[in-house]
Amino acid sequence: MTQYNYIEGGVVAPKGFLAAGVAAGVKKSGKRDVCIIAAEEGVPAAGVFTRNKMAAPPVAVSRAHIADGRARAIVANSGNANACTGEQGIADADAMAGATADALGCDASDVIVASTGVIGVRLPMEPLLAGIADAAAALDNASGDAAAEAIVTTDTFPKQIALAVEVDGVTYAVGGMAKGSGMIAPNMATMLAFLTTDAPLSSVACNEILKAAAARTFNRISVDGDTSTNDMCTLMASGAAGGDVIEPGSPAFDVLADVITHACGELARMLVRDGEGATKFITIQVSGAANETEAHDAAMTIANSPLFKTAIFGGDANWGRVAMAVGNSSATLDPSALEIVFAGITTCKDGMAVEFDEDVAAAALAEPEVDVLVDLGVGDASASVWTCDLTYDYVRINGEYRS
Amino acid sequence: MTQYNYIEGGVVAPKGFLAAGVAAGVKKSGKRDVCIIAAEEGVPAAGVFTRNKMAAPPVAVSRAHIADGRARAIVANSGNANACTGEQGIADADAMAGATADALGCDASDVIVASTGVIGVRLPMEPLLAGIADAAAALDNASGDAAAEAIVTTDTFPKQIALAVEVDGVTYAVGGMAKGSGMIAPNMATMLAFLTTDAPLSSVACNEILKAAAARTFNRISVDGDTSTNDMCTLMASGAAGGDVIEPGSPAFDVLADVITHACGELARMLVRDGEGATKFITIQVSGAANETEAHDAAMTIANSPLFKTAIFGGDANWGRVAMAVGNSSATLDPSALEIVFAGITTCKDGMAVEFDEDVAAAALAEPEVDVLVDLGVGDASASVWTCDLTYDYVRINGEYRS
Repeated sequence: MTQYNYIEGGVVAPKGFLAAGVAAGVKKSGKRDVCIIAAEEGVPAAGVFTRNKMAAPPVAVSRAHIADGRARAIVANSGNANACTGEQGIADADAMAGATADALGCDASDVIVASTGVIGVRLPMEPLLAGIADAAAALDNASGDAAAEAIVTTDTFPKQIALAVEVDGVTYAVGGMAKGSGMIAPNMATMLAFLTTDAPLSSVACNEILKAAAARTFNRISVDGDTSTNDMCTLMASGAAGGDVIEPGSPAFDVLADVITHACGELARMLVRDGEGATKFITIQVSGAANETEAHDAAMTIANSPLFKTAIFGGDANWGRVAMAVGNSSATLDPSALEIVFAGITTCKDGMAVEFDEDVAAAALAEPEVDVLVDLGVGDASASVWTCDLTYDYVRINGEYRS
Repeated sequence: MTQYNYIEGGVVAPKGFLAAGVAAGVKKSGKRDVCIIAAEEGVPAAGVFTRNKMAAPPVAVSRAHIADGRARAIVANSGNANACTGEQGIADADAMAGATADALGCDASDVIVASTGVIGVRLPMEPLLAGIADAAAALDNASGDAAAEAIVTTDTFPKQIALAVEVDGVTYAVGGMAKGSGMIAPNMATMLAFLTTDAPLSSVACNEILKAAAARTFNRISVDGDTSTNDMCTLMASGAAGGDVIEPGSPAFDVLADVITHACGELARMLVRDGEGATKFITIQVSGAANETEAHDAAMTIANSPLFKTAIFGGDANWGRVAMAVGNSSATLDPSALEIVFAGITTCKDGMAVEFDEDVAAAALAEPEVDVLVDLGVGDASASVWTCDLTYDYVRINGEYRS
């Protein structure tokens, strides 16, 4: 196992990055809503993006800008998703990149653009461009908090992480920030996540590490099964910590991959903990599957079942709903081999009920973290996903949002 | 269009059927929980069953019993699903069929068995078998109501339909009853539906009509996207109204197919209206799709989106969530062609927002029935599904169930 330490600083913990978060007036609340994260020059970078076919203009623009494996900066706003905005939306995303590039003295194609918030409304370009100029002027190496605050929407807290790891006498830092608490499901959520590192990763190394990390973290969480139009996750590598360029296949690559995956995992779990209205953090581990894809699908089908999620909210070890959900998944099953364990209590074995003490189960399910283990008994593959319960507050938040 | 009349009587409206519903003590509430629907002899019959891989013992037994295209009776209980009960569950389902057959003087293989309720608990066989004997003794041609009551679980009302149609001077009746209000999604829900007719349909005709009718009705509704382990829908044809045997391809076949499909549609819509905690009946019609499968998948993806369902609960014409859901479906899209109409109000055209009066929209969405039309603009195919909103009461009902 790779040894690493938790440190402070978020996205500016790694050397060679500056950040700023300002209030430009996109959010009606007057809270911070524009941020920039910038390297000192163009650096290796990678991104993964929503698979939603209604992907928003900033996703299209950012995909194009990162295609060369390099980026200088990220500009992001909250309060407005610039989604379902057509050609005007593309022009507006281009203008965000252009304004950032002008302020930093780089090419617009080196700027990644992200937006999150309400769908279908044109960005308020005048205050937004002024905010971008303000943010560019405020860039420093101590504003990770402000940047993280500027991307939240219905989140109840900003999400940041920073880790340090030593490889061959060189200490590398990995930083990250993320937002999102609803519309979260595999293949990127209403989720923005920006990772930084001062390790000298090549563009190819950035891409390989980020794709694998996202698959094992952000794509393994679900709040409500909905996948947004605007999700993206990026990694920029300044190389400012020194050392030789790190390419795939080297020992340093494996260490950085571990640490970056851990950072993504921490951010992903924060997203679930902040799931809209969530009162429980649920880990669903499916083992004994024919292969990892089926294990993952079975776990996700459970995670997205409203009946399962409301049962957990109610503190009910209702394993029948787990059996029902598994039966609806793509996983190969042997109904007589199914085993289900709620919070350490075996509730179903050989596909049948096991007597258990309902009071003990109720006490275990009253805890804020609940583990559900499902053994399909047909193979050796396993997968875990993280999700949350479905509560009155989820209904309230989403019945009232869009103001 | 086929002309038909609404009549009284439910499953015993067609000649040649008897029914009874009794309280056997399976339900703790003491309400009716066992019913029998019986023909006077073995008659042509067909069934469609859940595709859940954890299909319960009664599903396995009934599938085998109806394989020959004939049945004499249906025996059903509520309060216990006899699911995840292993070999014992099969033996218990067999015993239910056996007790019914003994009372009626037929072979056990001519009895269809259905159960609905809690998963993973063995059926209380002693009171259940006594109840079956009571129900068999109580069979008459006026107890459609009692039979329909005996299959409900969390339903707030029993669901029945009866229609009459004239073909070539002969009047045929079609009757039906159904239960279900949660765990409802395509490919059979926690849903039992039993149809009867006195038309002389052959076994082949029964099968063709039922499969097509279920595909266009019960498989086009969704309450929460979950599919139960116990669902089934059956059709029995007594032939007691007289006339020549009706085979596929005849004009009478087409008329009966229409009427039976309409009966299934009425029952399916009742299931949605009684969706757990539902306050709105939502029709989602997707047009302009490349093919019907994609239209159906797009409509179902919208119907199952918690964000869409909570928005409707909140009376919010949040078309962005419709665009998001469509983007997550399998449907071929042209983002610049998407059109979305909420309750007659165009909210999105050419993939972009259309200005609309929020007060007018709020008033329209305050109605108990809401139509959402989505034109994908890429083809000529369309499909409709029926669903309901996601409410505080859904969370309450499913956070508290299993008692």
